[in-house]
Order: sequence, then C-alpha cells, then structure tokens
Amino acid sequence: MVELRRNRRLAKGVSIAGVGIAQFGAFPAKTTRDIFSEAVQDLLNRSEYGLNISDIQCGYIGNFSADRFEGQAHLGSILSDWIGLTPTPFTRVENGCASSGSALREGVMAIASGLYDIVLVGGVEKMTSVPTMEATDNLASVADSLYEVPAGFTFPGIYASVAKAHMDRYETNLEHLMKVSIKNHHNGSLNPKAQFNMPLEELMQQRIDWAKERSAEIPHWNDANEFLNDLMANPWIAWPLRLFDCAPITDGAACALLVSSDLSRHFTDTPVNIIGIGQATGRPLHDAEDLTSFGATRSASKEAYDMAGINPNQIQLAEVHDCFTIAEIIAMEDLGLFTPGDASRAVDDGRTSLNGELPINTSGGLKAKGHPVGASGVAQAAEVFLQLSGKAELRQVQQKGLNLALSQSVGGAGGTSVVTIYERG
Amino acid sequence: MVELRRNRRLAKGVSIAGVGIAQFGAFPAKTTRDIFSEAVQDLLNRSEYGLNISDIQCGYIGNFSADRFEGQAHLGSILSDWIGLTPTPFTRVENGCASSGSALREGVMAIASGLYDIVLVGGVEKMTSVPTMEATDNLASVADSLYEVPAGFTFPGIYASVAKAHMDRYETNLEHLMKVSIKNHHNGSLNPKAQFNMPLEELMQQRIDWAKERSAEIPHWNDANEFLNDLMANPWIAWPLRLFDCAPITDGAACALLVSSDLSRHFTDTPVNIIGIGQATGRPLHDAEDLTSFGATRSASKEAYDMAGINPNQIQLAEVHDCFTIAEIIAMEDLGLFTPGDASRAVDDGRTSLNGELPINTSGGLKAKGHPVGASGVAQAAEVFLQLSGKAELRQVQQKGLNLALSQSVGGAGGTSVVTIYERG
Repeated sequence: MVELRRNRRLAKGVSIAGVGIAQFGAFPAKTTRDIFSEAVQDLLNRSEYGLNISDIQCGYIGNFSADRFEGQAHLGSILSDWIGLTPTPFTRVENGCASSGSALREGVMAIASGLYDIVLVGGVEKMTSVPTMEATDNLASVADSLYEVPAGFTFPGIYASVAKAHMDRYETNLEHLMKVSIKNHHNGSLNPKAQFNMPLEELMQQRIDWAKERSAEIPHWNDANEFLNDLMANPWIAWPLRLFDCAPITDGAACALLVSSDLSRHFTDTPVNIIGIGQATGRPLHDAEDLTSFGATRSASKEAYDMAGINPNQIQLAEVHDCFTIAEIIAMEDLGLFTPGDASRAVDDGRTSLNGELPINTSGGLKAKGHPVGASGVAQAAEVFLQLSGKAELRQVQQKGLNLALSQSVGGAGGTSVVTIYERG
Repeated sequence: MVELRRNRRLAKGVSIAGVGIAQFGAFPAKTTRDIFSEAVQDLLNRSEYGLNISDIQCGYIGNFSADRFEGQAHLGSILSDWIGLTPTPFTRVENGCASSGSALREGVMAIASGLYDIVLVGGVEKMTSVPTMEATDNLASVADSLYEVPAGFTFPGIYASVAKAHMDRYETNLEHLMKVSIKNHHNGSLNPKAQFNMPLEELMQQRIDWAKERSAEIPHWNDANEFLNDLMANPWIAWPLRLFDCAPITDGAACALLVSSDLSRHFTDTPVNIIGIGQATGRPLHDAEDLTSFGATRSASKEAYDMAGINPNQIQLAEVHDCFTIAEIIAMEDLGLFTPGDASRAVDDGRTSLNGELPINTSGGLKAKGHPVGASGVAQAAEVFLQLSGKAELRQVQQKGLNLALSQSVGGAGGTSVVTIYERG
C-alpha cells in the first residue's frame, strides 16, 4: 500500500472578509429564501469596499431540511436564483445540525483547491412553518432512524441521556446546566440579532404578563435562579433537562465571505484567517463507547489544532454547539479547553463568561441566539469574525490581544463535528 | 474592486483509481445503508492492490432525500458508521438529481486543496420505499416549490414542456425521442448492473406474459418500434412524453475512489484523470429565458472545457443526464457535442450508438440503467472509468484510441449542472 501523507495543510490561505446575519426568531410570513436573502443583504450592507453579488465565484449553503420543513429541496439552485447569483455554482451541504459548519469547510477547500478566490458560504433554516412537535420529529431524522428513533428517542431524550451519564461520572449537577443557560441568555441580551435578545428578567416579566392576561395565578420570582428553578417557568422536558436547557426552534440564516488570504485586504481592513479546520464522524449514540464525550469532536479538534499548529490552551474565545446546556459542557471538555469534569466548575466560576478568562458563546449561543439548525455553523463563524475584528459592539470581549478563537459545530449527538480555528488577520 | 483571477486550475491532479456499483433495481427489503454498502463492497472487490476502508481520508455522499424517502437525514454520519469509516469525515451533498455529480466535484476539490490524498465519493438513493406517486411528489421538491409545484408541475410535465418547445423550434419528433430510448435500452441490456438489463424484446415478452396471466387481450408487436408506438405498451405520461421516455424509479448506489494523480498507480494500473470539472446554476424553468436549452449546462461545460484545455469535438464518449429522452437531446446540444437542432438527427443516424462516432450513455443511461437520483452522477463517472480503462465488458466501446470522455449531471430542469471531463491516465 501507498504510504499516506497526512500533512493536512491547505495549499492556499483562506480568510473571512465579511459576514451577514439575518434576524433570528420566528417569522411565519417568511420563506427560506427570504431569510437567506436577508443575511446576504446584511453582508452587502456591511461590505467596506463595495462587494457585488457578481464578484462571488462559488457558493455553499448549509441546510438541514427545507425539503421537510417547506417542501423545497435543491436549495443551492433556488437560493442562487433568488439572490441573483446565477449561473455561479451553489451547492447544498447537509450534515444535520453541523450542515453549515461543513459548508464552511467546503468553501475553505474550494479556495485552497485553486479553483476559486471568492466563495460565499451560508446556512439557513426555516423551522417554524410546522408545529413544534413536527419540527422535533423532523430533527429526529438526524439521529439513527433504524435504531434510535423507533425506540422513542428524539433529541431532548438523547441529550438527557448524555447529561445523566455526565452527572453520574463527574460532579455535574442541575445548577451547572442552569448556569450555562444564564450565561448564554446574558450574552444573547447583548446581541440584537438573537432570538432572545433580552435579559432573563425580561423573560420573567413576559411570563408574568402572560399569566395576568389569562387571570392565572401571578408567579413571583426574585431573580433568574428562582425563575429557572420554578416548574411553571422552566418545566422538565426530559429529565435532567428543563425547558431552559434546550435551544429553541428558530428561523434564521447567516453567511460569510471567504476569500484567498492574499486578496483579503481588498475586501476588508479586518480580515480573519482560517488557520485550522477539521471534521470527523462519530458512531451513533446507541453504538457509542462513551456517552460523556463525542469522539467526533476530539478527532476534528485534533485535526484543526494540528493544522493551526497550536494547543487548546492558546484559544481565547470559543463558539460551541450548545443545542442543550450539557452539550456546551462536553464540548468544552472534548475540545481540550478544560479537563473532563472541570468544565462544569469553570461555568460555575464564571470563567467562560463574557469577561472571564475564556469567553464561550458570546453570541448567546444556540441557546439564546437561537438554533436555525442549518445556519448555526456559519452563524458561529460570523460571531468569531465580529469578535476578532472588534465589531461585536455591546458584547465585544474586552480581552487585550484577542487573537485566536475557535468554533465547533455538531451534527446529531456527535455523528458529525466540525472544528474551525481563526486568527485575527 | 479586486481584479479576479479566473484561472480555474486545480492546484493538484486528481484521478479515479477505482469504482463500485450496487445492483440497480427495486429492492423493498433493502435500506439506503445496505445499498450504499453494496457499492463500497464492489469497489473493494475490484481493488487491484488491496484497498482498505481505513485508507480513505475523507468522503462525500450525494443523496437527494433519504430524509423524505426513509426518514433518515445526516447520511454522511450514518453511512460512515455502516461501512466502518468512522471517524473519517463524510459529508452529504444535495443538489437534486445532480447530488453526486456535485459530490464528485467536492471530492476533487478536497484533494486539490492539499488536505487529503484519498477520497471516497458516492451517491445513493432508495426510492421504492414509498408509492410511485409519493416518489414523484418528493422529486417535485427539486423544482421551485413556490412557483412551479403549486401550479401542478411535476417533472414529467416540466420535461414535457421542454420537449414541446424543442419540437416547435427544431425538427425533433416523437420518433427521435423513441430512438434515444431504444439506444439506451440496447446499452442497458449489456450492463448487468442495470435496472433493465434486457433487450426491448424481453420487455415486450414480459408485457405479453403479463396480459396472458390476466386473461387480457394478448398484444402483438413485431419489433421494438411497434411496441413503443403502442398505447398499451407505452402510454402517454405527459404529452409528448410516453412511459419509455421517462427514467424509472430506482434503488441504487455507486462510488468512486479519488486519489492524488501522483499516487494513482499505487491503486490501479488503469487510472483515469479528471482534467476538467465545472458546475453552474440555472434559473428555475418558470423563469428561464429559453425552454430548449439549459444555461447551467452551457456554463458548466465551458468551465470544464476551459480547465481541460479541449474543445467539445475532442470528446469521444459521453454519459449525459437522460432523466427523460428529451434531456439527452438537449444535453448533446448544450454540451456543444452537436449543434442545436442536429442532436435529434444524430440519434436517428445512430451516431451516438455504442459503436457510432460518439457513443452516448453506453451504460444504458438513466433511462435503462435506472435513476436512483442521488447516485446517478457518480454512476456516470463509474461508467466512464470502466470504458476508458477497458473494463466495460459486453458494452466496451471498440473505438481505437479511446482517451477523452465527459459526463453531465443535471439537477431539476437545469437548476444545477455538473460537467466532468476525463482522460485515460
């Protein structure tokens, strides 16, 4: 057999030269193409040197299932028409909830291949067109349809199993999970594009007003802790996960302009270089060796760190895939940012808060920013770009010398993981 | 604005070093993962120098909609587990019926990017798990779900419009369409993996036996022409398209091993180099400027010819996307293989027959080999590999100096087109 060369170096440098984000939320009157167009328009509006759609040479769209949510497959073609990009090639990538994490990776390779210099990568999902239960069923198709779904598993149950296993093995408790949620909701309150762009106090007040309108018993909560410990405000979804441990159902889109690094200053004064990217698959949870860790994240992050030539302890900011609060905790461990069992304590100590030593999910994360599943991977890249280029406004991390960041996008319960490492250009 | 470099050259040569094909047909007892595994097993069985699954560094799977056909999304992760590839990255690509044509392109770029040397590209579709009408509805999601499907269009109607427009503008007639079908069924009769691996005479006999069993009037046909002109044997589907103008609903899979060209001889004595690849989008048919031609194919083929540095008249063999007979005719024209209006005559004259001057769809094409939509693009590449490497057995083209071939994969009615050019290595 041939001796493999596993150098894993890009033949050409790739940078992010701009990003666009649609408002995240629930928009019954909008279609997938409307929402994606809004993200592309935002990219054009933010463009410093007059980007035109026709400058783009190739595109990728991460989308989990517009075919099931909206009866529209073949989204690359449909969206390219809608944003005026025809005949530029545009390809849909689907890896469950990591779809646009993977779309980003395809865009990076398209440039490194030598074929293109300017590539649009995006992600979109329009999920509120169906009732929540149907959305949950659609999402279950990301799990194993032969061995998990027929046994009654949907994702809250799958991640509840992960949470229970983690609580058994380490000292993780319900309080730790809640603190992930409180942190991410705080960050979301500073992000105008977030689905929950409000502090938890405002969510509490909404719930009180809701009760008043219905002449229901008026709830009383003194603070976010009391609110999140109340069964009415925060019911069990699948023990040990409560409502506020789960990312919401969201309509949303995001996009990023990838360019050859040698051209990046023609597009922006603040490019962000992609210095490492790795992707890996993991066995379905029913067949996994360990419920408290995703092998795919460990493999993907090793590939990304090796490519970047850095160690996990050099990472200064991370956006991780917190589809459930427990997912943020195991991501912190699988990425090597904290030792197994220490992530819960780090959250507890505020070490991952906006101005902690390693801010995590400054955007609000999937939990508060929202989780339009096909869009989440690129939305993470957009947040990293804004933070590293000093454009994150209210939620700008104040850390001096902020230079290296990471994003991690997960499909299913670790079936796919994509890890990307960014450096200020 | 930056001045764009549109050199469109791969940073690194890419070759096909092996292919695998599952039996095409209708297999009620098989799942998507079974069918894909069969294709991968075929690749391993044909391997000349002992390929191991663990040699593969990255993978792509073209699939249109296992989520709708089988309730299984996130197919990259599921299939990688099933064939023992975990944790190797494996990504699903969906561009309608061009899904694995696009997967092939991603594989080419993954190698050219410098990240990988050995990449598996595959395609799979399991379509017979739902009734035919539901399959047709699922396929309609490849068209425009806002402007075409609500007007009553499914693909037979869409391609019937294309056929009618072509008949109006040129001298194309029903006889020409039928001759595409006769040619492709003849080729399919020589391809043991084809869904219709039988001459039309055998299909005629099957129909006669069917009538006998039901005490229906026994049909009499003297030859394939009479058979295909008979309304009982070959009813109208959407005028001017009849049953035998339409590719069937098929379960099937195919895969190809892509490697860095400098390594190809470690895997096979007969590599085939990919010297040009282009992809483009086209506007949906309801919004197209011309019904008799797909702009996406013209754009994609220009990109591919430019990259290969050849002219269309150098192509010696082609596999084109004959989802309907008319689609083969317009592909011949859009690819520049024949001038507009001349393709019908070329078929009539036998110029595209197995031993004509430019054999087209030697595999039997989508029409006779079958059209498991997500698999068709890579299945075309597999046929080209077999022909250029002299391994096509009964249907081996006898042309001396057979060296350059082309494949064209279409999503929808020209929403996406992928054109690949191959040279014997």
